[in-house]
Amino acid sequence: MRGGGPESGGALDRLIQLLARLPGLGPRSARRVALHLLKTRESLMMPLADAMAAALRDVRSCARCGNLDTVDPCALCRDPGRDDTVVCVVEGVADLWAIERSGAFRGRYHVLGGHLSALDGIGPEDLRIAALVERMAAPVREVILALNATVDGQTTAHYVADRLANRGVAVSRLAHGVPVGGELDHLDDGTLMAALRARRQD
Amino acid sequence: MRGGGPESGGALDRLIQLLARLPGLGPRSARRVALHLLKTRESLMMPLADAMAAALRDVRSCARCGNLDTVDPCALCRDPGRDDTVVCVVEGVADLWAIERSGAFRGRYHVLGGHLSALDGIGPEDLRIAALVERMAAPVREVILALNATVDGQTTAHYVADRLANRGVAVSRLAHGVPVGGELDHLDDGTLMAALRARRQD
Repeated sequence: MRGGGPESGGALDRLIQLLARLPGLGPRSARRVALHLLKTRESLMMPLADAMAAALRDVRSCARCGNLDTVDPCALCRDPGRDDTVVCVVEGVADLWAIERSGAFRGRYHVLGGHLSALDGIGPEDLRIAALVERMAAPVREVILALNATVDGQTTAHYVADRLANRGVAVSRLAHGVPVGGELDHLDDGTLMAALRARRQD
Repeated sequence: MRGGGPESGGALDRLIQLLARLPGLGPRSARRVALHLLKTRESLMMPLADAMAAALRDVRSCARCGNLDTVDPCALCRDPGRDDTVVCVVEGVADLWAIERSGAFRGRYHVLGGHLSALDGIGPEDLRIAALVERMAAPVREVILALNATVDGQTTAHYVADRLANRGVAVSRLAHGVPVGGELDHLDDGTLMAALRARRQD
């Protein structure tokens, strides 16, 4: 299609191709985003380019917990108001953010950086499991495995629990059950079964 | 939420906020995109930042037709193989790209830059209508109004057709009808009515 369309201008074509590789975007939405950016150069495109450069320069992984922040150790690891005796283990930073948004946890975190997956060739050495075991020193009394309730997530949780055995820490997992606001009609059998089994007396 | 989550690192927070302003993205997908970018720094984030900088520097509107390209006049206006007697008028660059992809048109284009909208306060002087009228010189014999089949698009088409009256050019519009591959059952009444009215004998 030389001579017309987005393919004609190399710079625009390249921008669209790269945008299309972002999660949730395809060729069509990438074109839409590129056009929107070029329509809002001053108000959005320039600030976004600056923000990407700043993030590339300043954002790093916390060497202790694996969270992303502009400082290392991260703000969560530095915060003196948090509970040093509990470590919540998550697969990714997005999970950490989700738990922080809930406001239900005030301990420390440990980001594994994924889950074990034979299919994708991800073994224990590819995750931050050794670093977690190293953190099992004096103040830590409990490790909460907040991994995804998927097969891979639960396999990983099982493996991590094994590695933490005989380290003098209690290992717990998130409860299964009916999501708050969830309709029973839309729940899978496994969740319903778990919710029934873990039923509580009023 | 100071002290935790994406809000803790200013650079990351700002990146997410700006990503969330892209069309089709919300706070949740913006967080996902930001994390994906930081996971693929070398392979995607840096090239994307470079592509944005290059597009900001190099991509401009064609002064003649309003298309986006790295050269002005754009590749479509320069192409000596295209038909100078027909000008296809579209609302936006995305429409121009769609028509180019179809391969069904080999004339010149004119991008209006939107449609008339009393609600949004967009009048004729906000669109490239005067520039279109100025292009109605010697070789142009036909103007195809390829505007959206929306109320605003058709209002705009009507207005543009009025402005082009007595300029010695034929003004035509895209045909209405059943989309190729479309199922009658899913079509609105207006389209069905238009397709029936414009029916053709085999």
